[in-house]
Amino acid sequence: MIGHGFMGAAHSQGWRVAPRFFDLPRQPEMSILVGRNAATAAEAAERWGWAESSTDWRAVIDRPDIDVIDIVTPGTSHAEIAIAALNAGKHVLCEKPLANTVAEAAAMTDAAARAFERGVYAMVGFTYRRVPAATLARDFVAAGKIGQIRQVRVNYLQDWLVDPESPLTWRLQKELAGSGALGDIGAHAIDLAQFITGQRLSSVSGIIETLVTERPLLGTKQGLSGTATTERGAVTVDDVALFTGRFEGGALGSFEATRFSTGRKNAFRIEVAGSDGAIAFDLEDLNTLSFFDGHAATGQQGFTRILVTEPQHPYLAAWWPPGHMLGYEHGFTHQARDFVHAIAAGEQPTPSFADGLQVQRVLAAVEASSDNGSAWTRTHEPAPELATQN
Amino acid sequence: MIGHGFMGAAHSQGWRVAPRFFDLPRQPEMSILVGRNAATAAEAAERWGWAESSTDWRAVIDRPDIDVIDIVTPGTSHAEIAIAALNAGKHVLCEKPLANTVAEAAAMTDAAARAFERGVYAMVGFTYRRVPAATLARDFVAAGKIGQIRQVRVNYLQDWLVDPESPLTWRLQKELAGSGALGDIGAHAIDLAQFITGQRLSSVSGIIETLVTERPLLGTKQGLSGTATTERGAVTVDDVALFTGRFEGGALGSFEATRFSTGRKNAFRIEVAGSDGAIAFDLEDLNTLSFFDGHAATGQQGFTRILVTEPQHPYLAAWWPPGHMLGYEHGFTHQARDFVHAIAAGEQPTPSFADGLQVQRVLAAVEASSDNGSAWTRTHEPAPELATQN
Amino acid sequence: MIGHGFMGAAHSQGWRVAPRFFDLPRQPEMSILVGRNAATAAEAAERWGWAESSTDWRAVIDRPDIDVIDIVTPGTSHAEIAIAALNAGKHVLCEKPLANTVAEAAAMTDAAARAFERGVYAMVGFTYRRVPAATLARDFVAAGKIGQIRQVRVNYLQDWLVDPESPLTWRLQKELAGSGALGDIGAHAIDLAQFITGQRLSSVSGIIETLVTERPLLGTKQGLSGTATTERGAVTVDDVALFTGRFEGGALGSFEATRFSTGRKNAFRIEVAGSDGAIAFDLEDLNTLSFFDGHAATGQQGFTRILVTEPQHPYLAAWWPPGHMLGYEHGFTHQARDFVHAIAAGEQPTPSFADGLQVQRVLAAVEASSDNGSAWTRTHEPAPELATQN
Amino acid sequence: MIGHGFMGAAHSQGWRVAPRFFDLPRQPEMSILVGRNAATAAEAAERWGWAESSTDWRAVIDRPDIDVIDIVTPGTSHAEIAIAALNAGKHVLCEKPLANTVAEAAAMTDAAARAFERGVYAMVGFTYRRVPAATLARDFVAAGKIGQIRQVRVNYLQDWLVDPESPLTWRLQKELAGSGALGDIGAHAIDLAQFITGQRLSSVSGIIETLVTERPLLGTKQGLSGTATTERGAVTVDDVALFTGRFEGGALGSFEATRFSTGRKNAFRIEVAGSDGAIAFDLEDLNTLSFFDGHAATGQQGFTRILVTEPQHPYLAAWWPPGHMLGYEHGFTHQARDFVHAIAAGEQPTPSFADGLQVQRVLAAVEASSDNGSAWTRTHEPAPELATQN
Repeated sequence: MIGHGFMGAAHSQGWRVAPRFFDLPRQPEMSILVGRNAATAAEAAERWGWAESSTDWRAVIDRPDIDVIDIVTPGTSHAEIAIAALNAGKHVLCEKPLANTVAEAAAMTDAAARAFERGVYAMVGFTYRRVPAATLARDFVAAGKIGQIRQVRVNYLQDWLVDPESPLTWRLQKELAGSGALGDIGAHAIDLAQFITGQRLSSVSGIIETLVTERPLLGTKQGLSGTATTERGAVTVDDVALFTGRFEGGALGSFEATRFSTGRKNAFRIEVAGSDGAIAFDLEDLNTLSFFDGHAATGQQGFTRILVTEPQHPYLAAWWPPGHMLGYEHGFTHQARDFVHAIAAGEQPTPSFADGLQVQRVLAAVEASSDNGSAWTRTHEPAPELATQN
Repeated sequence: MIGHGFMGAAHSQGWRVAPRFFDLPRQPEMSILVGRNAATAAEAAERWGWAESSTDWRAVIDRPDIDVIDIVTPGTSHAEIAIAALNAGKHVLCEKPLANTVAEAAAMTDAAARAFERGVYAMVGFTYRRVPAATLARDFVAAGKIGQIRQVRVNYLQDWLVDPESPLTWRLQKELAGSGALGDIGAHAIDLAQFITGQRLSSVSGIIETLVTERPLLGTKQGLSGTATTERGAVTVDDVALFTGRFEGGALGSFEATRFSTGRKNAFRIEVAGSDGAIAFDLEDLNTLSFFDGHAATGQQGFTRILVTEPQHPYLAAWWPPGHMLGYEHGFTHQARDFVHAIAAGEQPTPSFADGLQVQRVLAAVEASSDNGSAWTRTHEPAPELATQN
Repeated sequence: MIGHGFMGAAHSQGWRVAPRFFDLPRQPEMSILVGRNAATAAEAAERWGWAESSTDWRAVIDRPDIDVIDIVTPGTSHAEIAIAALNAGKHVLCEKPLANTVAEAAAMTDAAARAFERGVYAMVGFTYRRVPAATLARDFVAAGKIGQIRQVRVNYLQDWLVDPESPLTWRLQKELAGSGALGDIGAHAIDLAQFITGQRLSSVSGIIETLVTERPLLGTKQGLSGTATTERGAVTVDDVALFTGRFEGGALGSFEATRFSTGRKNAFRIEVAGSDGAIAFDLEDLNTLSFFDGHAATGQQGFTRILVTEPQHPYLAAWWPPGHMLGYEHGFTHQARDFVHAIAAGEQPTPSFADGLQVQRVLAAVEASSDNGSAWTRTHEPAPELATQN
Repeated sequence: MIGHGFMGAAHSQGWRVAPRFFDLPRQPEMSILVGRNAATAAEAAERWGWAESSTDWRAVIDRPDIDVIDIVTPGTSHAEIAIAALNAGKHVLCEKPLANTVAEAAAMTDAAARAFERGVYAMVGFTYRRVPAATLARDFVAAGKIGQIRQVRVNYLQDWLVDPESPLTWRLQKELAGSGALGDIGAHAIDLAQFITGQRLSSVSGIIETLVTERPLLGTKQGLSGTATTERGAVTVDDVALFTGRFEGGALGSFEATRFSTGRKNAFRIEVAGSDGAIAFDLEDLNTLSFFDGHAATGQQGFTRILVTEPQHPYLAAWWPPGHMLGYEHGFTHQARDFVHAIAAGEQPTPSFADGLQVQRVLAAVEASSDNGSAWTRTHEPAPELATQN
């Protein structure tokens, strides 16, 4: 595993727990954790149960006893590491967003396509697909339970930037973070909406906005930590992204990703309305799927709150009795499980890098639309920088 | 209408509104309002739209142009007025509880039975039966949608006595109020549970308790109004009633009626669990019925939140488009509608005085059980006074 | 009252009930109901308690014993009737939307401004402002409880057009209805958002769309009623409106008005996020306001579900004890109350026709933006016709 | 760890994960798993990550390299194993209920008291105390936020026995399971209520009942597994327990534990009403605590839904960012953490065996009350079998 921030903890938990609850065709070994600083990397390895630690990811990639590289570094380094790892014949799991730019994501997708030919697989870490209720939502849609999709509404609401005195961390600087709410949580919104509906966004119109444009600088040179100072610096990423999109199947989607929704901590909500029913999901109530069955008897219709904890539900047979709740981190366990299964089966794991690239294109289209007075912008075509790549 | 407290406002609204939304076979005229004080009665009549006012209920009962007597006085006077009115050939709608004692309620039931023979009808005002979602719950149970009933849970939660400095009003004095939480809101709990299940409670075990036994006296001789003084007097009614009951069909019921559930204002909740499903209702969410369909597909089961605002739902065809909410007072409009229909059809309106008496017997059994160390107490026996009546 | 559709029932209920629960400085008399067909107008007058009926609204406007004209006809006739009534010295309550076009709304606003000089008042019927929880939301915002407003999210979700076989009624024909979801429920969304925030939308970017473009024709020449036929006609109004707006105070708003949100009947939801807190309201839970207090103690923060049924809450002192619910129609009672008070006090009632015009301008700006590739469109400019009016 | 049923998986997860997220003063090593069958024990050890397996718990207890014994066997064997382990100087964590009888629980408590003198500690596994929202509820009560406690309402609702064809497993046989809903989930209800309130139940009145008295026998001699046959056997444990209790501090409590609440899977709900506020918790919404602050401003009161995912909340600083949910199993991780801390600090871990015994006494009192016509039964005194033990 390369990197050891918050995502490192989550991925480690996934690798640690997956073999304890699921029958895996191959047993993951938590071999080496790589970080920039030897001491902190060693400490993280010790804490999270990795056998070794290192500061040299290139050397790790070259090791013959390593089969899988799990990338949980910031987005700026994803492309370089992932491409090198794939080229070295390692399966790669890369945390989302796939990269900070479409160009990088495209290069990664290209590398993944070439690796695939050699039986080497790459996956991007949109773990919310593996929250059982979200998977069940996809299953319901795929089974035709809600009919033709008409509308999709997606809100990803956080509030950690409401305070204007909240400091200017690296996440608020474009050169480091790439993007703000749009790339961080908007990427989840796009991926999950496309996953559940089984349709891709073909065009978007939107706006991204920085509501608080200056914030206190941190008292360290890189702004990675430290305490706020009296000086202020410019916030160079978006606080809020609002956009409308058309899906390939004709549905309309409305999207919101924000770090300014006061009182909402991680409220990721999606509702899909179809000709025959609807589904609604909220990550803050993650063990539940609401389903409206348009074929239910007249006078008896309504949203059914399905507690997604029955053994018939996705992933649940491995867990606890009905009514015993799962949490955020279970998505990472399911991700580890699915990745191992795909590798063992010699199949492309999903979401693929191509899926990650497509999300990246949508993000880029939203930014372009915002820059262009919210003009409708296509997500696929033409993408000149891709013309030479694919 | 005899009486003009809070219930007078609600009943007046019922009589006023019913003919505007429902096709009634006979048109109610709001003729006379009767009160003890001429000035306040006149004022209430003016405000609520009664043509006249009076202080002499006996004279009103004798008037040949009066067909219906609506009794909304405190429970102590129900029996005298209702029996006189029925004997005078007037149809009677009597607010709940039917009376303050079983003996009075039995006498009223006897009078009602005799009046019935002459085509004169009596009804007791358990209006929550006529909240559409509660009526729908009854319909679902009667249609067998939840199968054999196993358990019933009823909570009627208020909190207006939490403050120990809340004064000693007449409602807290047994000689005036008859009972506390038990008779006031416990009566609703019993009636609605029996109505929805279609089963009567056959025996009970319970406890009634006064949590704050002394409260500030009010600065008037009757304690009917005024401001709190530094003197304290004894609270002689219950603050809380907790009891368990057996229904005739074998189900177990748990009941709570309280004025000490901090933060709950009028939370009247009932859940009925059967062999094939369940229903749940909450008066604070009164346009909704939750229904669990045990026959739904595996993996798709859950409580369905039915918005009871469709034209197919009870009473709703007369009201607004789907999704437009009804409130508390609509039960009184439905009550007026149903009472007029029953009279015009020459049929016994429900709930009858016999139904009101039966609730009274349950209340008495709970009190007896509480006095007797929560011993199980039958609700029917001995009922000699009924032997000759029915 | 001119007109007697669904809104006629609601307005009649408002006039009937307001004087029974509120102390009004003047007593409304329900004099005449006007309709196009004598028989149906007479029937409606009888049912809803109007003393007379008529088919000649011009004659009614000329009657000296009439003080107030209440317009509940479709939008196409609002301007003509309202202007005539104001010119004749009658106070006017006009149902929303104020008119079908900005030009008509502007002319009405002009007439209202002139009438105001003569002590004659006009109001537009955005009754949701008078749902107590919505009024309380406005009060909280105005009192600074949520600080500077950052984001506003408004969804008005219905589903009555989900079925593609639902017929082509007059509401789906632009020449009769003027607009679809946008003008019908989007108007409410705009008005309530502006009312609660105290800020106006200055520009918008959006899209309106017709998801089902052809529907069965009805077997009558006007399409006002009848049964669906096998022929199909074009739907000429929008099914869905999605737009983003900027408020004058700098907040961003996202709006959705739809008749295709499967399973949602009348889900009108608004959430306002500020620097110090947030409020959230849902018309399907209309007795409740959710409030997030950013100043609450750390670890104790969250959305507080305020049951807006206490005597301290707007309008509530006139109604029932705490915890007893109000419904949809109470907004109309409050509207009647407020209108009478404003007239008696010689003050401009709100929302004024100018307020209604401004909503109309926003609607027009959304349409213009949609026609123009979702380009950002100002809502005020050019407003030359107002320059001479106000 | 002795035993490897469903609880074994949960305890193993606790031991595995605790050192990864919490700083522990001593590092747990997952040494040996003990089961009756060598093959299945070995398989469980392999799956859950125990280094060895064994079928001889006595031998394991004698091993000098073992410091802690974790008992997750059925209740019948708790006493023998725990007492032996404590006498052998091993710290003991014993899954709830402490034992199947008061006598056994008392003997275990006696052994624990003696071990304590030697620096050997015992704890019983009521893990729901360690769901952060439940811990926070206790903290709020202890801090006086809700004032004097008046009422406690506890419902533990499951539905896995609703189907009368559900087979007669060992859990429905008194000689094996000891008790039914009462001992299984009623024990949790009692413990959590006492934990949150900080008060013990002093007397109870209740009823336990078997709603379906005969069920299909399983086709194996012990009824431990197999498929249902056409023969039927008697259910000898309760399906439902309903009881009322008095707390030492004067509060009244109502309790329900049931396996017949159709549609409810693991709905463990507790609400505590005090003179100054209230708290409400639901295990199906386990990341949330609802708090009613009676000192909030008039008109602003209501239940606040606190998302218990902030770093200030119990246990949360070790986990994910705000708004990222925990699940059922986290209670076991917290239990492992707390147990290790107590051992390292040389302090009595809680809940102690004495706490477990006291719960057992309450359970026994409920059974005795049920057997005695729901007569009020004291939970502490006199307990003859204890007279000679303590």
